[in-house]
Amino acid sequence: MNGWLCIAGLGPGDAALVTPEVTAAIDAATDVVGYIPYVARITPRAGLTLHPSDNRVELDRAAAALAMAAEGRQVVVVSSGDPGVFAMASAVFEALENRPEWQQLDIRVLPGITAMLAAAARAGAPLGHDFCTINLSDNLKPASLIEARVRAAAEADFAMAFYNPRSASRPDTFGRILALLRGICGPDRLITFARAVSTPDEQIRTVTLAEATPEMADMRTVVLVGNAATRRVGRFVYTPRSAV
Amino acid sequence: MNGWLCIAGLGPGDAALVTPEVTAAIDAATDVVGYIPYVARITPRAGLTLHPSDNRVELDRAAAALAMAAEGRQVVVVSSGDPGVFAMASAVFEALENRPEWQQLDIRVLPGITAMLAAAARAGAPLGHDFCTINLSDNLKPASLIEARVRAAAEADFAMAFYNPRSASRPDTFGRILALLRGICGPDRLITFARAVSTPDEQIRTVTLAEATPEMADMRTVVLVGNAATRRVGRFVYTPRSAV
Repeated sequence: MNGWLCIAGLGPGDAALVTPEVTAAIDAATDVVGYIPYVARITPRAGLTLHPSDNRVELDRAAAALAMAAEGRQVVVVSSGDPGVFAMASAVFEALENRPEWQQLDIRVLPGITAMLAAAARAGAPLGHDFCTINLSDNLKPASLIEARVRAAAEADFAMAFYNPRSASRPDTFGRILALLRGICGPDRLITFARAVSTPDEQIRTVTLAEATPEMADMRTVVLVGNAATRRVGRFVYTPRSAV
Repeated sequence: MNGWLCIAGLGPGDAALVTPEVTAAIDAATDVVGYIPYVARITPRAGLTLHPSDNRVELDRAAAALAMAAEGRQVVVVSSGDPGVFAMASAVFEALENRPEWQQLDIRVLPGITAMLAAAARAGAPLGHDFCTINLSDNLKPASLIEARVRAAAEADFAMAFYNPRSASRPDTFGRILALLRGICGPDRLITFARAVSTPDEQIRTVTLAEATPEMADMRTVVLVGNAATRRVGRFVYTPRSAV
């Protein structure tokens, strides 16, 4: 019995953005567990069992991974991006609640390049000053809380990164967020839509809030909003290190 | 003339956290530019010139790097962590202002593992829900703005990550921030002090706000503050995916 569990971040898509630490963990694993498209990024090999599962079963997936580690297997739970940012790490720790026998396992979180930082790098440096990171999905929190946090962030002049800005099940939420931002930040504030960063489908587009429409975002997009000082220089967008 | 410039993130310290993309850029470079301790992390080799410089000369360093790229050299500007988070990317873009001849250069930002995400991974998943990232240094912004942003973040129940929480030149600022947080978040809120993450000097310590003292942070520390739902499970601290 020398089971262990790593919760590993695969980064946004490009293999060149996977850390050597994560690659080594996958090379040492007997089992890889995760959402179907992330497990599809792992190269099959003898001795490695892949366990792809559907979306929205995060707690069941986490419990299954912990049970395997408890049986002595070497398990990697894969997330896109960083496992600690709207990904599998919190689900694994939730699954540890009231399971003291699992809490003693060898469990490690291996960080990865999260989407907002890959997107910011492609655009320039729009998160170069204080910023807030907000998940716009209302699966796990009320829409009123999302709007309150966006309002607080905008009023305090944070730059912002939005994960899961828009999905088929809530097509109108993001339009309301854009209207809220326009009201507080004005029409000229810069906003970057970064879709499928570091993949062949990558699209990066920076516009003003006046020009922004909800259709510019989909489930594969991360959205970056500048602060009052964010500006363009050449083909880049960046936020200066100094406050205005 | 085929000069280029990459602004690359070296991660928090451990070579296993440097992305292959960054390693490849350094392997292809003729010149590496950066703050002394970061350039010290680069292995010297024939054909590579190292240009270490002191702290607080970021704009001069950026301009020197751009001038070398304009002369046809292959230049990597190195930052610790991620170059877009309180690091060199914004300084390079600032140095591009009013220099249209430099704006046409081949310039790329290569993301890295930023300190807060490496620290969160070591502690568990304290940034597993919406969070704010704030630089507590008052070098480039007034202390009043820092306090206003911390207040806004705490009142909207964001988790928080603080960079540069404390330095010899402003020993009292962080004590005021802790008092402010205690007033809004109460004495039981969890706070993690992560020092020198992924280096031999690493220290990770999670306490309550009631127990936290300014001396727990220094210039090598990143501080993570939980939201109202952040809790311990076993030896870990995490923020659940659901709002309270």
